[in-house]
Amino acid sequence: MKRYAPASMQEARNLAVFLITCPDRKGIVATVSAFFFERGFNIVHCQQHTDRLESRFFMRIIIDLDSAPCSRRELLDGFSGVAKPFSIQWSAHFCADPQRIGILATREPHCLHDLLSRADTGDLPNVKVSLVISNHPELESVAARFSVPFFCCRIDRNDRRLQETEVIGLLRQHHVQLAVLARYMQVLSGEMLNEITIPVINIHHGFLPAFEGAGPYRRAWERGVKMIGATAHYVTPQLDGGPIIEQDVERVTHEDGVEALQRTGRDIESIVLARAVKAHLEHRVMVHANRAVVFSAGA
Amino acid sequence: MKRYAPASMQEARNLAVFLITCPDRKGIVATVSAFFFERGFNIVHCQQHTDRLESRFFMRIIIDLDSAPCSRRELLDGFSGVAKPFSIQWSAHFCADPQRIGILATREPHCLHDLLSRADTGDLPNVKVSLVISNHPELESVAARFSVPFFCCRIDRNDRRLQETEVIGLLRQHHVQLAVLARYMQVLSGEMLNEITIPVINIHHGFLPAFEGAGPYRRAWERGVKMIGATAHYVTPQLDGGPIIEQDVERVTHEDGVEALQRTGRDIESIVLARAVKAHLEHRVMVHANRAVVFSAGA
Amino acid sequence: MKRYAPASMQEARNLAVFLITCPDRKGIVATVSAFFFERGFNIVHCQQHTDRLESRFFMRIIIDLDSAPCSRRELLDGFSGVAKPFSIQWSAHFCADPQRIGILATREPHCLHDLLSRADTGDLPNVKVSLVISNHPELESVAARFSVPFFCCRIDRNDRRLQETEVIGLLRQHHVQLAVLARYMQVLSGEMLNEITIPVINIHHGFLPAFEGAGPYRRAWERGVKMIGATAHYVTPQLDGGPIIEQDVERVTHEDGVEALQRTGRDIESIVLARAVKAHLEHRVMVHANRAVVFSAGA
Amino acid sequence: MKRYAPASMQEARNLAVFLITCPDRKGIVATVSAFFFERGFNIVHCQQHTDRLESRFFMRIIIDLDSAPCSRRELLDGFSGVAKPFSIQWSAHFCADPQRIGILATREPHCLHDLLSRADTGDLPNVKVSLVISNHPELESVAARFSVPFFCCRIDRNDRRLQETEVIGLLRQHHVQLAVLARYMQVLSGEMLNEITIPVINIHHGFLPAFEGAGPYRRAWERGVKMIGATAHYVTPQLDGGPIIEQDVERVTHEDGVEALQRTGRDIESIVLARAVKAHLEHRVMVHANRAVVFSAGA
Repeated sequence: MKRYAPASMQEARNLAVFLITCPDRKGIVATVSAFFFERGFNIVHCQQHTDRLESRFFMRIIIDLDSAPCSRRELLDGFSGVAKPFSIQWSAHFCADPQRIGILATREPHCLHDLLSRADTGDLPNVKVSLVISNHPELESVAARFSVPFFCCRIDRNDRRLQETEVIGLLRQHHVQLAVLARYMQVLSGEMLNEITIPVINIHHGFLPAFEGAGPYRRAWERGVKMIGATAHYVTPQLDGGPIIEQDVERVTHEDGVEALQRTGRDIESIVLARAVKAHLEHRVMVHANRAVVFSAGA
Repeated sequence: MKRYAPASMQEARNLAVFLITCPDRKGIVATVSAFFFERGFNIVHCQQHTDRLESRFFMRIIIDLDSAPCSRRELLDGFSGVAKPFSIQWSAHFCADPQRIGILATREPHCLHDLLSRADTGDLPNVKVSLVISNHPELESVAARFSVPFFCCRIDRNDRRLQETEVIGLLRQHHVQLAVLARYMQVLSGEMLNEITIPVINIHHGFLPAFEGAGPYRRAWERGVKMIGATAHYVTPQLDGGPIIEQDVERVTHEDGVEALQRTGRDIESIVLARAVKAHLEHRVMVHANRAVVFSAGA
Repeated sequence: MKRYAPASMQEARNLAVFLITCPDRKGIVATVSAFFFERGFNIVHCQQHTDRLESRFFMRIIIDLDSAPCSRRELLDGFSGVAKPFSIQWSAHFCADPQRIGILATREPHCLHDLLSRADTGDLPNVKVSLVISNHPELESVAARFSVPFFCCRIDRNDRRLQETEVIGLLRQHHVQLAVLARYMQVLSGEMLNEITIPVINIHHGFLPAFEGAGPYRRAWERGVKMIGATAHYVTPQLDGGPIIEQDVERVTHEDGVEALQRTGRDIESIVLARAVKAHLEHRVMVHANRAVVFSAGA
Repeated sequence: MKRYAPASMQEARNLAVFLITCPDRKGIVATVSAFFFERGFNIVHCQQHTDRLESRFFMRIIIDLDSAPCSRRELLDGFSGVAKPFSIQWSAHFCADPQRIGILATREPHCLHDLLSRADTGDLPNVKVSLVISNHPELESVAARFSVPFFCCRIDRNDRRLQETEVIGLLRQHHVQLAVLARYMQVLSGEMLNEITIPVINIHHGFLPAFEGAGPYRRAWERGVKMIGATAHYVTPQLDGGPIIEQDVERVTHEDGVEALQRTGRDIESIVLARAVKAHLEHRVMVHANRAVVFSAGA
């Protein structure tokens, strides 16, 4: 099937993204930009943010690896030297490397469908969906449509850890780098979150922090809200309390019953989750103090 | 100063609005529409809603009083006869009668300014702002600009009821039919809400039910939300828990600190409150089971 | 695969939708509602609209067929008798009858994927996608995923009518009741529109009437707009000039180049087209004087 | 009357904003940031944009003047030296200097009211509204409320240039630095635009480039659009063709007649114009090739 043109400039060229954060102080921008300039790198894109209340600096810088004769190793070692005096925490991401994600779902197909379709058409940058895991068998046919391996990991209500161990094993075995909870109707235990060493993005079907927990659409209807929303966030041990990556809302009216809210909500859930996953895969998200800096996409 | 053309068709003609609600059953629409048709009234507008979960019927019907030779008394008495067998709760509103509102504020001027400006230019239908009350003196000059009487009712921290009694007295004395809390930073006591016999609309500077209570912008910033909102609702004894009339949101980013959220929020607060007040004054709102049916404006 | 609960109340029960329009005059509501009431039908939902500038009345009324012992024939014949004296133009739609749609696309998969996924999961009411037609072969695999017949109808540049005749033949052969142009990059000729006797919905990748015709994203970028949009409309002989069913927009910035606008635009196109198709299939759209009355969904 | 806390960080401290643009090439960021760093300036905020299609670089950099012992003259002369080799076009703005604006209006008060209220409460940064000019007398009382001088400059239909000359004279006499057309229903002639040497911002009551010229709401109604919008742009000789600074929209329905569109539109016009004026006054807008780079506000 026809794939789109590259999902973004990141895929089109041999680029690297540096994500940088440190306590705010003079000279960071000058020092970092000088580092790349002196080695001959072309800076393709540069975004900064200073959190004045936390006195913290954030930077996202994209360089064209083909613009300078410098190995990955030299580049990373060199940057280490710059980072230390400023107490910079940083990560570097090479856009040519494919990224493997695993999707967890339960029974509702819309978010899964949407993500698989986006991965298939090239709307997500350089991504490979390695597997789909569900605690129920119904979504197998959806995964099969896109030729993605599907695993049904049933939950033993007497020992939920059994299933979690199985899930972690599958994610590791497939070298998954990001787990996406696409309407996965289970809470990950603190133990699982400790063991799992990759980021996990969840879509919550409510406008957090309103309607944390179960049954948000019914509670939204009962409260008589005039807009409903969805929230994509990184999963932390605090239920629905992790750093928010993306939110959106739609207007509803008194005419919309609980089922109408659910129908409207499904579209918001799909798009909000897709945007959050895309932001993560494009290395636009940095987390500090449970809040997410999400740099704009552009280009 | 130039006033707009009539704020809506309601002001332009000699109309009456009937708001009707009853348990849902067959024949209501046929009966009600026959009542007006048989007396020769032209039905200018008719909106209905059935809350299927509560099995309750709502109707808003606008008739042209000039289209039939029938006194107000005859009309009201006649409709009483129709209403009884269906257990209809209803109210009738004559659009030619001006509506008196009172505005309560504290120190922030934006909502007050916005409402006074709308009343002045005819953007609110047939309304007269009878007075402005504040627990602080700063906004007197704003009221003075629009030649609206201003009353500063200071709060005695040892006996808050004193001030509330004073406020209620002023509202009564000015025959106010709707009180609008335009960033009035005080919680009305249960006693006051019992005594005050007019509806009260409040603007809450958060997207309810998120961030009920104090300091919503700081808490929104701390939670790292990606959208902020405001909520206009009728005041009930439950703090920020009354029926929601209108909500809206704006997108924010990690770049927005607490003060930026406040600045953005002010615009949302003004517009959301204005829309809610307008909906009330146009007799488009009906409340049942703590939820508000808000019929669309149109025309 | 798991299907959702019924897409709306229309699918769940044995309902009929009446769409009614006529010149505005007294007594229409009373007469129409009396017609159904006297035959014992339960009116499940009733929406009205009066276009004051055109002096025209519109009504959508949903009745529960199981609530009265009356055959389809009796119902339709009876309503004919009511309609004539008011010069009512009307149509009746029985929700139990499945609706067959045909999708035309070219190379871009996102709208096609979205519609097939919605039809598959029950998000569109009681619909069957009978076939997919394209002037290119690339999307065959997408149709195959959902086991929908795919036809590649190549265009002979010397005689475009050949392909149009082929397309019309296929739509007839499959008894298609609605054709959906899901990013079909061809203009239907006046002849084809004359011959095709079913409604056709198109998605235009611009906020009409801005950017009619080709290349809207590039022109939007050149004009430096701060929001881009998409428009779903019924196709008429006037290019991009048919009645608008649905529009939506997203905010963009100077950072977004043409490709970024296209990426953002794809999501708007998918959702706007889906909403328009759903509105049509739920019998919520009436057209008069090239403008579409689109009743709200609710329930 | 109570003023808000400073409208932004720019007002609170002794800051300068540099706006910089040049053809894109290596080393700009490194050079510019080194310039300020070496002189000891604290960079409070830094935003960049590269227009890849035009191969052009844009930068907005805010420095804290109190963080280094350097006179304005030294600073400007020094930066000139840096700018030349890169062909940088630049401007520097000192936030401590108040900015004088002039507002032109005709009869509709909403945008004028909104701007005066924002200037009064400190919502616009460090601004002084020097005068209001209208071609009609009705808005005098609005200006008087805020103690702003009002001038009625009538148009002689036989010689429109007379009035334009009068207006330009008034703007010069009051040392106005920005003219805002707040629903000024006159087209400025090419001659006037040549003579006036300050930027002019206009609010157009349509979603440009749709509905350029007169009567946009009626035309929007006739076209049956489902959203209406407003557009703030710099005025150029091409009618409604200048660089767009801000746009926004609201959803409308078939229920909204022309007057309802106008009412809804007024709120959009006010907010869109206010945001554009604020962006300009905060030195966040740069124009190149008839498109506006509008940096985000944040902070």
